[in-house]
Amino acid sequence: MNDRSRKRSQMMERRSQVLQPRQESAKGRLSAGFVEALKAVVGSPYVSTAAVVREQHGHDESMHRCQPPDAVVWPQNVEQVSRLAALCYGQGVPIIPFGTGTGLEGGVCAVQGGVCINLTRMDRILELNPEDFSVVVEPGVTRKALNTHLRDSGLWFPVDPGADASLCGMAATGASGTNSVRYGTMRDNVLNLEVVLPSGQRLHTAGPGRRFRKSAAGYNLTGLFVGSEGTLGLITAATLRLHPVPEATVAATCAFPTVQAAVDSTVHILQAAVPVARIEFLDEVMMDACNRHSKLNCCVAPTLFLEFHGSEQALAEQVQRTEEIIRHNGGSHFSWAKEAEERSRLWAARHNAWYASLALRPGCKGYSTDVCVPISRLPEILVQTKEDLEAWRLTGSASPLRARGAGWDGARATALSSGPPGTIVGHVGDGNFHCILLVDPEDPEELLRVQAFAEQLGR
Amino acid sequence: MNDRSRKRSQMMERRSQVLQPRQESAKGRLSAGFVEALKAVVGSPYVSTAAVVREQHGHDESMHRCQPPDAVVWPQNVEQVSRLAALCYGQGVPIIPFGTGTGLEGGVCAVQGGVCINLTRMDRILELNPEDFSVVVEPGVTRKALNTHLRDSGLWFPVDPGADASLCGMAATGASGTNSVRYGTMRDNVLNLEVVLPSGQRLHTAGPGRRFRKSAAGYNLTGLFVGSEGTLGLITAATLRLHPVPEATVAATCAFPTVQAAVDSTVHILQAAVPVARIEFLDEVMMDACNRHSKLNCCVAPTLFLEFHGSEQALAEQVQRTEEIIRHNGGSHFSWAKEAEERSRLWAARHNAWYASLALRPGCKGYSTDVCVPISRLPEILVQTKEDLEAWRLTGSASPLRARGAGWDGARATALSSGPPGTIVGHVGDGNFHCILLVDPEDPEELLRVQAFAEQLGR
Ligand SMILES: Cc1cc2nc3c(=O)[nH]c(=O)nc-3n(C[C@H](O)[C@H](O)[C@H](O)COP(=O)(O)OP(=O)(O)OC[C@H]3O[C@@H](n4cnc5c(N)ncnc54)[C@H](O)[C@@H]3O)c2cc1C
Ligand SMILES: Cc1cc2nc3c(=O)[nH]c(=O)nc-3n(C[C@H](O)[C@H](O)[C@H](O)COP(=O)(O)OP(=O)(O)OC[C@H]3O[C@@H](n4cnc5c(N)ncnc54)[C@H](O)[C@@H]3O)c2cc1C
Repeated sequence: MNDRSRKRSQMMERRSQVLQPRQESAKGRLSAGFVEALKAVVGSPYVSTAAVVREQHGHDESMHRCQPPDAVVWPQNVEQVSRLAALCYGQGVPIIPFGTGTGLEGGVCAVQGGVCINLTRMDRILELNPEDFSVVVEPGVTRKALNTHLRDSGLWFPVDPGADASLCGMAATGASGTNSVRYGTMRDNVLNLEVVLPSGQRLHTAGPGRRFRKSAAGYNLTGLFVGSEGTLGLITAATLRLHPVPEATVAATCAFPTVQAAVDSTVHILQAAVPVARIEFLDEVMMDACNRHSKLNCCVAPTLFLEFHGSEQALAEQVQRTEEIIRHNGGSHFSWAKEAEERSRLWAARHNAWYASLALRPGCKGYSTDVCVPISRLPEILVQTKEDLEAWRLTGSASPLRARGAGWDGARATALSSGPPGTIVGHVGDGNFHCILLVDPEDPEELLRVQAFAEQLGR
Repeated sequence: MNDRSRKRSQMMERRSQVLQPRQESAKGRLSAGFVEALKAVVGSPYVSTAAVVREQHGHDESMHRCQPPDAVVWPQNVEQVSRLAALCYGQGVPIIPFGTGTGLEGGVCAVQGGVCINLTRMDRILELNPEDFSVVVEPGVTRKALNTHLRDSGLWFPVDPGADASLCGMAATGASGTNSVRYGTMRDNVLNLEVVLPSGQRLHTAGPGRRFRKSAAGYNLTGLFVGSEGTLGLITAATLRLHPVPEATVAATCAFPTVQAAVDSTVHILQAAVPVARIEFLDEVMMDACNRHSKLNCCVAPTLFLEFHGSEQALAEQVQRTEEIIRHNGGSHFSWAKEAEERSRLWAARHNAWYASLALRPGCKGYSTDVCVPISRLPEILVQTKEDLEAWRLTGSASPLRARGAGWDGARATALSSGPPGTIVGHVGDGNFHCILLVDPEDPEELLRVQAFAEQLGR
């Protein structure tokens, strides 16, 4: 378990404490009366205790075991959220906020049962203030829905974790993304949150109606709720900071002889203050997987994906400087993508890196470590991680998936057992990378080994 | 009392609660034994109960009444800070952290007496990591000292509230500054804090040794301590984010026919995504005061001070776009400053706006309101504020300072009574402006009126 996961599970425990004051509910045992009370708040059609619905809400995109809630409810407005919270809290029933379920940390798993509050039916864009570069969204609004809405406004919301997640879910997880090196993470782009506390009480973290950037009054509650992963309350509206759409955009890929060369280039580009908008690293295994999954034909080598935003003139200069730095570090095989379509293909491939990794080992589940290091230590740590991955693979502990029913022969099993158990991909501009380990979810021993490996990585 | 001040005083009360668990100490009554205990921690020369020293530490640069602590101590390392905190906490004695005393909100006033912990003797730069764009500083290191230290590193720390404040004090107040429109405020540039809690316990808000930008593990404690104004604990070290020194810099001033025109230009510049580094507004009264105080000869009109950072080529483009926008809004009297010396003169004038205002009414104290509004409402609110200032002046409630001893005649008094009681200056790029009210500190009635006025402004 890496550092992030460890703290997360501490937070989960705390959530149970906060939301279960009396610890009365035993898992899977909501009384009929309680379910009726839920229905009285949101209306009958918006409460479900059906097994299939509960299963759907018991997991996210990660390999964490499905832990279904006892009921799922779909509130339609903040008053209902408030009444639901008070109801659950009063009865000691855990509350699990549910955005779009794209998390990678098992945040929506109902570890102690409880009521899953699915917020997707609250999906209005409440207020757009172009002059203030701000927008207020309900929790069902996703990143893509917002940017579609903004299409003609000259503005956009840049934080982009790949998945089309709900913006309030992104706030709850403190999401970053490929653009963070230039535009920051959710921490930098959330101006205010409307929050329903477990007691049902509503508050605005930066005061009511606030939609401006700087506020120095009182404690920074907004920052506290961003990244609190649903443990402090339900986010029922978020005021977000928008950015002007860049006049021009150009993307590029570039291959490197070594991991070190790719990361050195990153550091030099940042030091030269080139205002790069995206800079993503893929190791050669990841690059290979993306080539296959997304039909690219990049060199199979440590690779940087880059993007620049600005005026035509500014772009030309940024591109020139970057090329100089990269060539100096031994980079080659530049490929520039100017057209929107070409760029989309590239970033879609990057965003599908997760699924491309999974495709390397059919039937597997992904276990993503999330490591943040000072950029100066990134080359060393990335190289070490790659060596660890290799050692892990060679000791044979990454056993192939056992044939389940389907014909599964020794040859194929052997081929897989020497196959790559993990890929590396990262927002290197922020010193942040993910090692995606491909695990057989049915093999408890392998699961344990993966956890031990991830823990080692965390250290 | 504006919003910020109100929340501040709530925090002050909370501090008293946190730091005075037993409420045993009555103001001005530290026992001889307690003072000896303080000396045992830091050494005799580093404890003072002298009236003059206590007076020096009982106020900052604002007009808040001097409220001296009962003793001042100068710890030399974090262990001493920790022992001092535990000692005071154990005895229910309030602790007041003291940076450089440049605050404008009376944060260092010992409202209930107690021990002032002056941190200026802890002034080492503990660690500089150029590749990670980070530095770790002790609480006695000021903004200017750090930038002097960084001179040859190609890096700098941009947050600049004007005063040469301690960086940890700036973290404690969540300071912003003229550069915030481009580089963010302290919130965006503090990566980690070492904090001593009232109990004496030490913690690192982002975990030990963390010096990277993105961290998603656990609650965002760094953000909670930034802006907590000494109410949650003592900051004993700060890890700060550094930025590459721009290749070239150019500054400018520009006069506008109206406040509206100046603020409209600001919005349009931001909307055009011109990466302006500084954009400051001064009303004509402020401009006049700066001309006098700092020997500038700008037009006496609503004015913008601007600065751009980038490569030569990028600058040329930024300047061209800005000129277009400003001319379109009726701006004129451009004056560009390329040389470092010229630029320094300009920004020194801007930073001395506070003292330039005070000089308008000799003997007065300044009362600065700190208002943050959505940028779209800024023109309207600024215009309204100016009208309010004018009305206030004309009703004669801003009485001239009474002659204290010195010959003071009616003519001069009348001249002053129709003089300007306030100036306006602001980081308009952030929707943030200050109205500086010039108050006779000896006139309780005027003080009350100023407070009422500021309260109205806050609303
Ligand atoms: C392919 C892929 C790539 C990704 N890459 C990145 C990446 O590069 N960087 C990164 O940071 N993340 C990444 N993620 C994870 C991404 O950040 C999350 O998917 C997203 O932030 C969660 O949004 P969600 O609406 O799906 O939340 P959910 O998965 O529904 O919930 C996540 C957590 O937030 C809580 N929550 C959700 N909504 C609310 C609410 N309204 N109020 C309170 N709590 C709430 C939940 O209880 C849960 O604990 C990736 C995910 C995928 C699938
Ligand atoms: C001319 C002038 C212009 C200014 N302009 C701006 C501006 O534009 N924007 C802006 O934001 N501010 C502005 N300020 C205020 C400035 O932000 C503060 O002066 C500065 O942030 C406080 O730093 P300090 O070290 O002097 O703190 P102090 O004044 O010593 O203390 C301020 C508060 O922080 C606490 N504190 C200090 N050090 C610590 C520590 N190490 N640990 C915990 N608590 C601590 C104190 O207890 C007190 O509550 C201006 C000040 C002046 C004089």
